[in-house]
This record gives sequence, C-alpha cells and structure tokens, in this order.
Amino acid sequence: MPLQGQALVSGTVEIPPRSGAAFVLETGQTLIVTDPGGQQVADLLAYAKDDVREVVSNGRTFDYEETIALTTGNTLWSNRSNRMLTIVEDSVGRHDFLLTPCSEATFKHFYPTKPVHRGCFGNLAAALEPFGVEPDAIPTAFNVFMNVPVDGASGRLRVDPPTSKPGDHLALRAEMDLVIGLTACSAYDSNGGSFGPIEYRIEG
Amino acid sequence: MPLQGQALVSGTVEIPPRSGAAFVLETGQTLIVTDPGGQQVADLLAYAKDDVREVVSNGRTFDYEETIALTTGNTLWSNRSNRMLTIVEDSVGRHDFLLTPCSEATFKHFYPTKPVHRGCFGNLAAALEPFGVEPDAIPTAFNVFMNVPVDGASGRLRVDPPTSKPGDHLALRAEMDLVIGLTACSAYDSNGGSFGPIEYRIEG
Repeated sequence: MPLQGQALVSGTVEIPPRSGAAFVLETGQTLIVTDPGGQQVADLLAYAKDDVREVVSNGRTFDYEETIALTTGNTLWSNRSNRMLTIVEDSVGRHDFLLTPCSEATFKHFYPTKPVHRGCFGNLAAALEPFGVEPDAIPTAFNVFMNVPVDGASGRLRVDPPTSKPGDHLALRAEMDLVIGLTACSAYDSNGGSFGPIEYRIEG
Repeated sequence: MPLQGQALVSGTVEIPPRSGAAFVLETGQTLIVTDPGGQQVADLLAYAKDDVREVVSNGRTFDYEETIALTTGNTLWSNRSNRMLTIVEDSVGRHDFLLTPCSEATFKHFYPTKPVHRGCFGNLAAALEPFGVEPDAIPTAFNVFMNVPVDGASGRLRVDPPTSKPGDHLALRAEMDLVIGLTACSAYDSNGGSFGPIEYRIEG
C-alpha cells in the first residue's frame, strides 16, 4: 500500500485501510478529512513546516480551549503555544485527543491473540520520516472521529465505535505552514472491529 | 532561588515557591513528593536516564491505565510504551495529567494584568538543560496535586484549588533509571492563588 495515499478525482486522496500519509498544508489552506464508509478513525499530527520540533500538543490545546471535547471553533495549539489548526466544520462532533497512536506495543497489550501491526504509530513514523520527524517526536495525536467517552466522576475512559457515518467529515484551517501526518487507523476497538479507508483533500 | 532545591534534614529537599529542580532517580528508588503547606501543585516530568528522547506520555498512560484519574496502583508510561513510575502511595487522590506546564505564554493568556513569569515550563527547561533536555522536548507534565475536574458530558474542564492538605504526599517507584523534573508550580489558579514550596525525598 502506498504510504502517501492514492489520488482520486477532484483532488481527493485516499489513505487505504491501516495505512498513513504525510503532506504539507500551507497557511490558510483547509484540510478536509472524510470518513467515506463510516466508523473509521484518522489519527492526525501537525508539525511546523519550518521547524518540526514545534508540534501539536494535547496539553496546550486542553489548557487554552478549556475542554477535552474539540469541535467547530476550537483550535489545536502547538507545544510553543502557537495556533496550528482551527476546526471550521465538523459533521460528527466526536473526536479524541487523549490517546496515543496504536503501535506494535499497544497491539501486544490490547490484542494479544491477534497479529501484531505497526499501527498508526508505525504508519506515521514512516510517512513523517522524509520530513525529518523521528519516531520519538510523535506525541499524542488528534484522533479524528475517535469516540472515547470519559466518566467525569471516576476518570475512567473507554473506546467506543466512532459515531461517524459514511461521508462525515472534519475541516481544519491551517494557521501556520504545517507538515500533516494522517492515518486510516489500524486498531480494532477504535474502528468498531473493521478497517476502512480515509479520504482527504486540501482547499485554498 | 537555587534551581536544584535546598537540602533539609533527613534527606528532604525543598523546592522554593515558583521554582524547579531536576535529579536522577534510579530503578527501584521511591520518590516522595510532599506538599508541606497544602494547596500547592508540583509539575513532574520523567525522562529515561540513558536516552532522554524517551519521556513520560499522558496519552500512553491514559491508554494503558484506561483512566485519566491516576492514583495508587497506576503506572506512568513512556512514549516508547515502557513503565517509568508506579504510584505506590497517594494521600490525596487528585492529580492532573491533561494540562501543560505554565509558561510565559500561558501567563500572558490567562493573567494578562499580572507580571509574566517563566512558570513551570521555564523552571523545568532550566533544571533539565544540564541533562540534555531541550525546551521543545517538554511534554504534558504529570501535575501532582493539581485539581482539574472534567465534565464527562460536555468535555469542559476547569482548574480548582488543590485538595491537598499540609503534609499530604505522593510516592512513586521508579521502574527504570530516570531523570526527574519537578516544580513548585507558579500559576495562580492552580494553587488557590498563593505559592508554597514543594518538598521531595528519595528512598531506597
């Protein structure tokens, strides 16, 4: 499967099931991430194009946005407290920024009887390597369409199937020049037990 | 104020208000973090001593522990999916792993009328620099005694005063050789509006 996705008509790119891509998104451009079949998660990372040591940060985002539930109008912030991406459209309203990309280690931990997969972590590491991003520089991703309810009283969380339906999408506007990493997630529980593609296109 | 804290009797070290320290914690040793005056947060970071690119990760920890409310029996995991620290005693039961260390940028954002302080971020960066940790390699810290209730339904969070009382403590056992960064937090809201010291000692 190609790492960088396959070009479809009208500028749409497909990321095949259980794979990943990386690409540049310039300031002011909008990235539209679509779940063509429904119930499919896409892990998203963002790095400053000019210096990939600047990276999206769940902690800075939770701090400035004062919520863990990010949707239209919210901004994803960097570790240097700069605005990276603003969510401008969201047909789902349910995403996760708590959990790290699935990896060989998480497959062994959560699915000990299933084949080990390199997961979103391995897919992101491979796709981002040409941009100078080392595997250790992969933080908690913004997990588009991932459904992780948190019980406020106990703190317990669980991974439920995404609520995204076929054609649902999330659109994010770049607030700086970025390198984006994006996957069609590889973990069973995150995607309701099956694996679909993710599509994206860039406007502007 | 000394960056590395001041030695007290019986091996206890004081981190003065609004400052930070860094030190080595060997495998099997226990770090006891005490709030001598009550209502004082301590931001804690952990790096693998042998390779500081391995660092504590809130996302890996939330994933493996299946909760955002970490207390006795829970483990803090690294970005490489290794166990770093296990909480072995907790007289408070209320800590935060969602929010990033306060910094010059967060002071400007949240306290625009107050003097800017380098915050826990600046204190951690200064204390960790001799160990080869760059500022960009400071992730979301484990914020000992920090009280951040999350509304499960809306996702909204807020920063309340710590519930820690004078003498309350948290004890963590090292599962690998670590470099620890630790602060007496500098942000108004996190500490109920005033600033106290933090004490720590190492056993074993």
